[in-house]
Amino acid sequence: MKEKSLRSHEQWQGKIEVISRCAVNNNEDLAVAYTPGVAFPCLEIEKNKEDSYKYTRRGNLVGVITDGSAVLGLGNIGPLAAMPVMEGKCLLFKEFAGVDAFPLCIGDNDAETIVKTIKLIEGSFGAINLEDISAPRCFEIEERLNEICDIPVFHDDQHGTAIAVLAALLNAVKVAKKDSSIKIVVNGAGAAGIAISNLIYEAGFQNIVICDRYGIITVDNAANKYQKDCALKFNKDKKGDLNDALFGADVFIGVSVGNILTEDMVYSMNQNPIALFGADVFIGVSAGNILTEDMVSSMNQNPIVFALANPVPEIMPEAAKKANVKVMATGRSDYPNQINNLLVFPGILKGALKARINKITSEIQLAVARGISSCIDEKELSCENIIPSVFDKKIVELVSDIVCSFKK
Amino acid sequence: MKEKSLRSHEQWQGKIEVISRCAVNNNEDLAVAYTPGVAFPCLEIEKNKEDSYKYTRRGNLVGVITDGSAVLGLGNIGPLAAMPVMEGKCLLFKEFAGVDAFPLCIGDNDAETIVKTIKLIEGSFGAINLEDISAPRCFEIEERLNEICDIPVFHDDQHGTAIAVLAALLNAVKVAKKDSSIKIVVNGAGAAGIAISNLIYEAGFQNIVICDRYGIITVDNAANKYQKDCALKFNKDKKGDLNDALFGADVFIGVSVGNILTEDMVYSMNQNPIALFGADVFIGVSAGNILTEDMVSSMNQNPIVFALANPVPEIMPEAAKKANVKVMATGRSDYPNQINNLLVFPGILKGALKARINKITSEIQLAVARGISSCIDEKELSCENIIPSVFDKKIVELVSDIVCSFKK
Repeated sequence: MKEKSLRSHEQWQGKIEVISRCAVNNNEDLAVAYTPGVAFPCLEIEKNKEDSYKYTRRGNLVGVITDGSAVLGLGNIGPLAAMPVMEGKCLLFKEFAGVDAFPLCIGDNDAETIVKTIKLIEGSFGAINLEDISAPRCFEIEERLNEICDIPVFHDDQHGTAIAVLAALLNAVKVAKKDSSIKIVVNGAGAAGIAISNLIYEAGFQNIVICDRYGIITVDNAANKYQKDCALKFNKDKKGDLNDALFGADVFIGVSVGNILTEDMVYSMNQNPIALFGADVFIGVSAGNILTEDMVSSMNQNPIVFALANPVPEIMPEAAKKANVKVMATGRSDYPNQINNLLVFPGILKGALKARINKITSEIQLAVARGISSCIDEKELSCENIIPSVFDKKIVELVSDIVCSFKK
Repeated sequence: MKEKSLRSHEQWQGKIEVISRCAVNNNEDLAVAYTPGVAFPCLEIEKNKEDSYKYTRRGNLVGVITDGSAVLGLGNIGPLAAMPVMEGKCLLFKEFAGVDAFPLCIGDNDAETIVKTIKLIEGSFGAINLEDISAPRCFEIEERLNEICDIPVFHDDQHGTAIAVLAALLNAVKVAKKDSSIKIVVNGAGAAGIAISNLIYEAGFQNIVICDRYGIITVDNAANKYQKDCALKFNKDKKGDLNDALFGADVFIGVSVGNILTEDMVYSMNQNPIALFGADVFIGVSAGNILTEDMVSSMNQNPIVFALANPVPEIMPEAAKKANVKVMATGRSDYPNQINNLLVFPGILKGALKARINKITSEIQLAVARGISSCIDEKELSCENIIPSVFDKKIVELVSDIVCSFKK
């Protein structure tokens, strides 16, 4: 995989390209597309800012922006090293949704600086996709940008993952014949874990315990104010380790925080194609396989396990089966039920651009999750089919249409 | 022209587009272009920053960046309204040089803020083309960025124009049988006027008088430190108005500063295609036609006039002819000798990217000007043929090769 990836990337010389949409073959072409003709759309936009969507590429253009601080599970590898991932994300926007996306890396990890920089260039884009910015700064950055920007700012690592998880959860609950009162353990309290907990709570699943590597998060051991908010909202009067949390639980959702995978570990991976979207990605061996059969056995009957750490899930599907897991999902493409935010982000921002929606509210997120969930026909629903394939062509349009339905 | 331009821009929905350079049709494609395969180029770049040119689009990518403060002759119309021009510039980079270019507008006119913002995102690009930033901030911004950035930062309104003017001047002097001791009057002391004066001085033309709308610039009437430097360097012991400056001059180079053209004036323009690159563009009626036949008659024998204000030159070619001008050039495509920086910027940044040259020094600028000048064969050289057409396909490669020859 290493050799193939390096060779391919070298051949591509970039996974995206900027091309022209009009020819310039003579003075007349020049006069319309450039001076003096270009003065007219400029003057129209000066009079009415909305016209920037009419006369420039802005209406179909997403900025994919990172500071390189939480890239895959590789951690804070910096802005330059993050760019292959950002180009990859732009590639996916184009290939899956026809949306133009352009990658930018910001050479500073300071939240205030990142917010100011993005605000300064927001007029160049129709939407912003924040990518691979580490928690807890990612929460503050997204919140503040959504307060001050006129365009939607979407942190996919949070909400894309949360929406995909909720879509799968809604079907898993049907298959396992459970209801919204079930006890759900979320393991991982970074961008994905906190966003998942909040979104499934909004969807009516309010019996949640959220853990990190030190166990159940409490007001006292919370690492930041966002974890503290979670402790107060979900974990009141609860404490202990993951074993304690899982006792009698119906659902386990694992999205462990990355940055523990070494280079050697990456290089030791095999050639099986594995999609890593679902989790904070690349949890690494030490955090993979943390869910034992005994732990699963202590869960409620017909347990649901979403082991989204990648490439090594918190428990392998084979072991989960032995422990009588009823519904098993991973972030991997080589097992059934791949939970992948690629189901979400292309359609979300396609719709937001189309309908000029400037906030991806939790109402929109809930509706999208329900929409993706409903793509699996009741007749086709089974333990091994709770979520559509990322290559199901109808998903992007469906998600986009749902977002558009929120146009005021 | 207005209707055609607005209709075309609306149809184009952007003059540039971001496309993908590789397909994503199945899980294996995903695994190479995105996770987990993308981790390998990320890790290579983390180890060696130079590899960002190998594994991402950076090596062929220019950021075209403005604050919207001096857009064409329309003045400070703001970041959003500047975008059709920036997209146009990106279009020209692609169409003329095959270079990818992406436009960004910065929503602040503060020089310090612009410098910091561009520095923060420099890793996203292989070169920066500053565009339509008003003087004198443009000088400070370009200087500081070239000090602190690892990639070339080129302000085309200054140097692109200066290089094109010098290329034309070298041939005009031959045709008019003059030498480098000739007296040259530069009218306009903004980005273009100051850069032209400095570059032709470097080329050996050291008898220069630089004027602005108030006449010969002196230490006392200089509007900023850059004009003051010019007064000291070029205008020592000289004072008076443009009439005084022109007395006995051999060459007039007009690049009046824009921002005096009203919207009504733009709308009153006719349908003749006019290229505006040469000057600070759009000088407007009041500043056009400022050079009278009497003034030209007071010049030396066989005077050379580059009247680059657009769309109305400082003197129309017909009037110049009556006043016995020997060599006449404008920024317009409908007269002979169009001086247009489109001859310069695509090749300059193509070459800089190719050879990884991080400063476009004055040595490079002089060599490029001489190279463009030499494209007109001695046999073909005439009063009406001192500079190649922008559609001469060999120019971009020639300029690029010259820049590449400076690779260390």
